[in-house]
Amino acid sequence: MTLKTFLENPAAWLDGKGPAAEIVISSRLRLARNIVRMPFTCWAKEKYLREIISLIKDAIKNNAFLPNATIVDLEQADSLIRQFLVERHLISPEHAKSKIASVVIGDKESVNIMVNEEDHLRIQTFSSGLQLNAAWDVISKIDDRMSEKIEYAFSSEWGYLTACPTNVGTGLRASVMIHLPALSITKQIGKILQAVSHLGLAIRGLYGEGTESSGNLFQISNQVTLGRQEEEILDNVEKTTQKIIHEEQSAREQILKQSRVQIEDRVYRAMALLCSARIISAQEVMELLSAVRLGVGLNLLNIPIKILNELLISVQPAHIQILVEDQQSPIEKDMVRARVVQKKIMEGMKNV
Amino acid sequence: MTLKTFLENPAAWLDGKGPAAEIVISSRLRLARNIVRMPFTCWAKEKYLREIISLIKDAIKNNAFLPNATIVDLEQADSLIRQFLVERHLISPEHAKSKIASVVIGDKESVNIMVNEEDHLRIQTFSSGLQLNAAWDVISKIDDRMSEKIEYAFSSEWGYLTACPTNVGTGLRASVMIHLPALSITKQIGKILQAVSHLGLAIRGLYGEGTESSGNLFQISNQVTLGRQEEEILDNVEKTTQKIIHEEQSAREQILKQSRVQIEDRVYRAMALLCSARIISAQEVMELLSAVRLGVGLNLLNIPIKILNELLISVQPAHIQILVEDQQSPIEKDMVRARVVQKKIMEGMKNV
Repeated sequence: MTLKTFLENPAAWLDGKGPAAEIVISSRLRLARNIVRMPFTCWAKEKYLREIISLIKDAIKNNAFLPNATIVDLEQADSLIRQFLVERHLISPEHAKSKIASVVIGDKESVNIMVNEEDHLRIQTFSSGLQLNAAWDVISKIDDRMSEKIEYAFSSEWGYLTACPTNVGTGLRASVMIHLPALSITKQIGKILQAVSHLGLAIRGLYGEGTESSGNLFQISNQVTLGRQEEEILDNVEKTTQKIIHEEQSAREQILKQSRVQIEDRVYRAMALLCSARIISAQEVMELLSAVRLGVGLNLLNIPIKILNELLISVQPAHIQILVEDQQSPIEKDMVRARVVQKKIMEGMKNV
Repeated sequence: MTLKTFLENPAAWLDGKGPAAEIVISSRLRLARNIVRMPFTCWAKEKYLREIISLIKDAIKNNAFLPNATIVDLEQADSLIRQFLVERHLISPEHAKSKIASVVIGDKESVNIMVNEEDHLRIQTFSSGLQLNAAWDVISKIDDRMSEKIEYAFSSEWGYLTACPTNVGTGLRASVMIHLPALSITKQIGKILQAVSHLGLAIRGLYGEGTESSGNLFQISNQVTLGRQEEEILDNVEKTTQKIIHEEQSAREQILKQSRVQIEDRVYRAMALLCSARIISAQEVMELLSAVRLGVGLNLLNIPIKILNELLISVQPAHIQILVEDQQSPIEKDMVRARVVQKKIMEGMKNV
């Protein structure tokens, strides 16, 4: 794996072309699967962990849905590479702590398989905007193809067996990454998120369970995987997301009506700072990008969503660390981040 | 007096052409004078106050140093006009509270006479940059000419007699308005100001005694007027100011050496916000102008000092109030202020 190749080729799901892509950054599906007659990762000895990796490497060979896949052995990956993979959503923060584990990364990062995360396989797909059903077509085909080569742990009574009971059944988690600045500004976000959790959905930070929300971005996903059909799960997440989009759009109309100038002020100041700062932290970029993204949604600014999406990833700490020397100070990293932001925005403005 | 004429014609002393004008905004001289055999303003009855005004009006007629002078009767001036005059440094905050008083405003606001302030006459001159001696030539000629028409209260033992003993003697106050951002950033400002006060000089806020400093601007002036020759007073303020300029310039070299990028960041962010905000308070403009002015001093930006000087005055509350309807909200005033700033900067950039 060359980091440079990844850096220069943003993931396809960041292209901003999917449905409602200005509000819903991405749709992600994840299937938890385990190999029959193998101990679960958490108590598997090294021998088994290596065997699992080997079985899965064999299984993906010649898989039409995973052409040109890259396999990264986490054993060989230092903490920087692990953090880099987390920032790209290719591995989870938990997976990044594993010793004997790997990740299979499909072309343009649309598909990936975490090996020896909590389950032996965590197959994931990422798509732009809100398109869970299209993503389901892709992931179920990959899953079918994998099941031809690997016998999954499956019970006719319970469905797919997983390390944690919350994933038993379909093993499916459907989630969307959604940007809700107007609901935050109008202070309705708490109420909305509470309503969402009453509908059996979970709200998480940007990098999954236990991570913080940043830049008004939230991950919304199903909690329950058992006793429901996959279609039912997808349908529930999709419909709830549609409702949240509707609420966000109402809140946008409300703020435009009640405080248009304050919003313009926030948007134009954010854009000016992104273009002018010489030193900028990841946290500040996330906040400014949120205001700029809202500005695009309100037709106050004209910047491709793709540019804003790519920045969400490329300003993260490990992405910046790769561009600087080892010993450089936090200020020097914040300087490089400012240049990354400005280069990307210039690139985006050229094509407007 | 038409406010519009004043608004459209910034005072000459703001032109930024004087010596060291980037650090020293202005040099101001003030002579306190009283008319012999007249009670001091504070205990003069209405009859005398009116007589004083009348005597002074007569005295300025055909005064070659006060051509086209405008006389504003404060009795006719509402609180907005009074505040407007304070913001332009044409009257003091104390004078603005007077009932029977007036101000004589010379061409381009280079000279003015407050009538019935603490003393019957407070003759003032304003010049760009640090040029106390040149200002002295002007003010002493005006004073001489006035003394041909008015007999001043004068004692051969004490000199000019004034309402407050601190002004007895020469009645001269020499002050400079100085911008000390680098001494503030390097936290040396407290030490410097303390040293200045040990040299017998006073440090005041932007609008004189009892007002706050803002945007790293300070007024430095002599405390003592008695027992010294005018030349000695001017010399002391001038030399001390030279020393402070030297300290400020050393501090600038120091910050450029130690934290160039942080300074660039501060300067470019400030410029970006001034040019992009839709809503902006007077206080914020003062802070941003300070950073931009520092940027000009460090050759990071190229904006005429004249533009920055004029903005110091034209963003003040009464100046903005004149441009808006009576009932407009604070937000609407802050919107007008943002437009005033951006128009002025655009105007300045055109001529660069």
